[in-house]
Amino acid sequence: MKPPRAPLALPPLIARKRDGGALTDGEIRALVAGAARGTIPDYQLAALLMAIVWRGLENRELVTWTRAMVDSGDRLEWSALPGSTVDKHSTGGVGDKISLCLAPLCAAAGLYVPMMAGRALGHTGGTLDKLETIPGFRTALSPAEFRRVLTRAGFVLAGQSARLAPADRVLYALRDATATVESIPLIASSILSKKIAEGAGALVMDVKVGSGAFLPARSQARALAGALIDLGKRLGLRVRAVLSDMDQPLGAAIGNAAEVREAIDVLRGGGPPDVRALTVRLGAEMLVLGGRVRELRAGATRIEAQIASGAGLERFRLGVGLQGGDVRAIDDPDRLPRARTRKVWHAPRAGIVAHVDAGALGRAATFLGVGRLRKEDPISPGAAIILHAKAGARVERGDPLCTLHYDDPARAHAARPLIEGAFRLGSTAIRARPLVLETLG
Amino acid sequence: MKPPRAPLALPPLIARKRDGGALTDGEIRALVAGAARGTIPDYQLAALLMAIVWRGLENRELVTWTRAMVDSGDRLEWSALPGSTVDKHSTGGVGDKISLCLAPLCAAAGLYVPMMAGRALGHTGGTLDKLETIPGFRTALSPAEFRRVLTRAGFVLAGQSARLAPADRVLYALRDATATVESIPLIASSILSKKIAEGAGALVMDVKVGSGAFLPARSQARALAGALIDLGKRLGLRVRAVLSDMDQPLGAAIGNAAEVREAIDVLRGGGPPDVRALTVRLGAEMLVLGGRVRELRAGATRIEAQIASGAGLERFRLGVGLQGGDVRAIDDPDRLPRARTRKVWHAPRAGIVAHVDAGALGRAATFLGVGRLRKEDPISPGAAIILHAKAGARVERGDPLCTLHYDDPARAHAARPLIEGAFRLGSTAIRARPLVLETLG
Repeated sequence: MKPPRAPLALPPLIARKRDGGALTDGEIRALVAGAARGTIPDYQLAALLMAIVWRGLENRELVTWTRAMVDSGDRLEWSALPGSTVDKHSTGGVGDKISLCLAPLCAAAGLYVPMMAGRALGHTGGTLDKLETIPGFRTALSPAEFRRVLTRAGFVLAGQSARLAPADRVLYALRDATATVESIPLIASSILSKKIAEGAGALVMDVKVGSGAFLPARSQARALAGALIDLGKRLGLRVRAVLSDMDQPLGAAIGNAAEVREAIDVLRGGGPPDVRALTVRLGAEMLVLGGRVRELRAGATRIEAQIASGAGLERFRLGVGLQGGDVRAIDDPDRLPRARTRKVWHAPRAGIVAHVDAGALGRAATFLGVGRLRKEDPISPGAAIILHAKAGARVERGDPLCTLHYDDPARAHAARPLIEGAFRLGSTAIRARPLVLETLG
Repeated sequence: MKPPRAPLALPPLIARKRDGGALTDGEIRALVAGAARGTIPDYQLAALLMAIVWRGLENRELVTWTRAMVDSGDRLEWSALPGSTVDKHSTGGVGDKISLCLAPLCAAAGLYVPMMAGRALGHTGGTLDKLETIPGFRTALSPAEFRRVLTRAGFVLAGQSARLAPADRVLYALRDATATVESIPLIASSILSKKIAEGAGALVMDVKVGSGAFLPARSQARALAGALIDLGKRLGLRVRAVLSDMDQPLGAAIGNAAEVREAIDVLRGGGPPDVRALTVRLGAEMLVLGGRVRELRAGATRIEAQIASGAGLERFRLGVGLQGGDVRAIDDPDRLPRARTRKVWHAPRAGIVAHVDAGALGRAATFLGVGRLRKEDPISPGAAIILHAKAGARVERGDPLCTLHYDDPARAHAARPLIEGAFRLGSTAIRARPLVLETLG
């Protein structure tokens, strides 16, 4: 006679992981399914997650964990589309509006981009918050709407469906509340489970490096890139990872409506050179992965052509319209919201800008209302920081370094010390950091 | 303007411990108080506890943590008693009935022993479960009853009051459910917070080593002993630690009523030599700590004298009576419960007993009903394993190795493989392991 047992006795399993052992496939499937169904107490999951942050997951465990997250919900399927589905995902940055221009450009170049995006989190911006500054734009789409927009526009930019990888949603909320987000295998499985569930055939990962990145150190970024590529390989998803600079913000605009404006500038053939360059590079990677071109150079040419011809802008207009957005805001960005007050920040002395700290500016922007201090906070769509000088620029005393746009003066006041510390002025010329540090996969 | 904040933001604090940093005294006090009051979510406490298992607590943190646990409830005070209060605590073992004879013997020798004991947990026995086999004996005492019994009998053996160190109760239950028990600092603070709250002036720790111990490895036992001594010093509680063997069970009896009988045998001057020897040794340590004698040798003599004179037995009778127990069961142990069925286990061949595995026999005894497979299980007061041969004994084929006493034949069947594996027969004489391995503090 065996002793009576609960279906899954958690403490011995947590103890095994705590002591550096491995979980069986059956245990992992029961755990992930139990998390999704809410049948495993939060406190046991929390202890297990911290043990995983400590001990990691071996390859087999990670594959099973990720598959179980995919299996916890629906899985979209795009084989009937007349082209490859390729997605791009970024680990999050400050001023990163690349998705907004990249998705329609790739669609114009023949790919299908089923992009599920997120909201502002910590000091990093959220693609959904940016898009929602376009009057009428809806990010919560039904599966049928998602399919219709993707089929017709070639891209879709929507919120994560609650029916895709629900286990990830539960586990992510718990990780966020228990300081167990920072685990390479858990991050990799969270990202890839959603991409596999959304039916992407290939994925370009933009892994940020620097003060504004979620994982600031290059070694961490490289470890995550490697984990994503390896896990993708085991799960049949082609992943290519680009490590890109996030030591200073991308482009000039940090702010929801302001970044939509900057993305439109890029689609019109203008915009800041770094935003345009990274868009072209990531688009080229996507075209190679999707089999539209053989080489990056050809991919870059193809993306540049979609900018030059206006085809990318046209796709953006089409997609925004299909998602309920007012397309007049694209042709006349003054229709996008602006904050009530602006204040210019001047250089205290002459010099050469040695560093513009993305992390500090991201936090300052959050204070202004670009992001949320708490999950339930509303965002301020017009709040922004617009940079007038980036690393390497020579400024005279009194030259504008940036302009703050805000609705609430008290919040602007709170952002002051962060902005003061964000600009470092030197006296010698600096060598520009490369935008793309390396590519893996 | 500072951003609005919750009184204690847990994730950054958990992240700091996760990354090897330290918590401030204020944070620790808020955490422990919040745990006691139930204002901190279980899942955040669970993640923090796992991070502490991983990263440990530094001395200052541990002192503050322990003080905060004491401060979460009442604290007893015995300065009006005409003698020192000294307690003994064991990390738990198989067949460990030492408290039952030790407390009345030390009381007879002039100490006051305010002992709060526990219940069977895992494969280790529980002093309360043993005492409750004496008809009428009550372990749940009010503070006034506790004081009255201690004052009159010189010792009291009761359950942990819910009013002492309530934070420890909450945290222990959570640790048990989340595999976060195994942390030297958390174990040390759990033990000492209760001893300080119960008002003990000094403490002898019996730290078990071997297969039947909670921490089997000698290195772990030594680490715990060192942590207890050091933490005691910082908190003003004198602690002396004895590392004693728990590779084989203590004495011959494993079982609740059976162990009460064996303890009475020791108080009458008989009983197994190891139980008597450890009782005398720990009693001698307590008398030295309590200032009744200068040296261990004198302490041992004093304890032996309480056995020889019957004073210890008389004290036991007094204390049991004051706690509602039927003292006739002490004079006539046949009044203690016995199980319905017995079965003798025979040696399969001749040889010398090389090892009697305390861990395996503890688990086998739990199956028989000595302990609990689940917290809500009842125990079987008469269930027992009585050993007829211990390490070093020479046996012939068919000699009895042990006798199982049980009420439920199915449970006895489940215990079979464990008992089969518990006795290792060799062919060469073995050197007896010392009972006391070392003393610290």
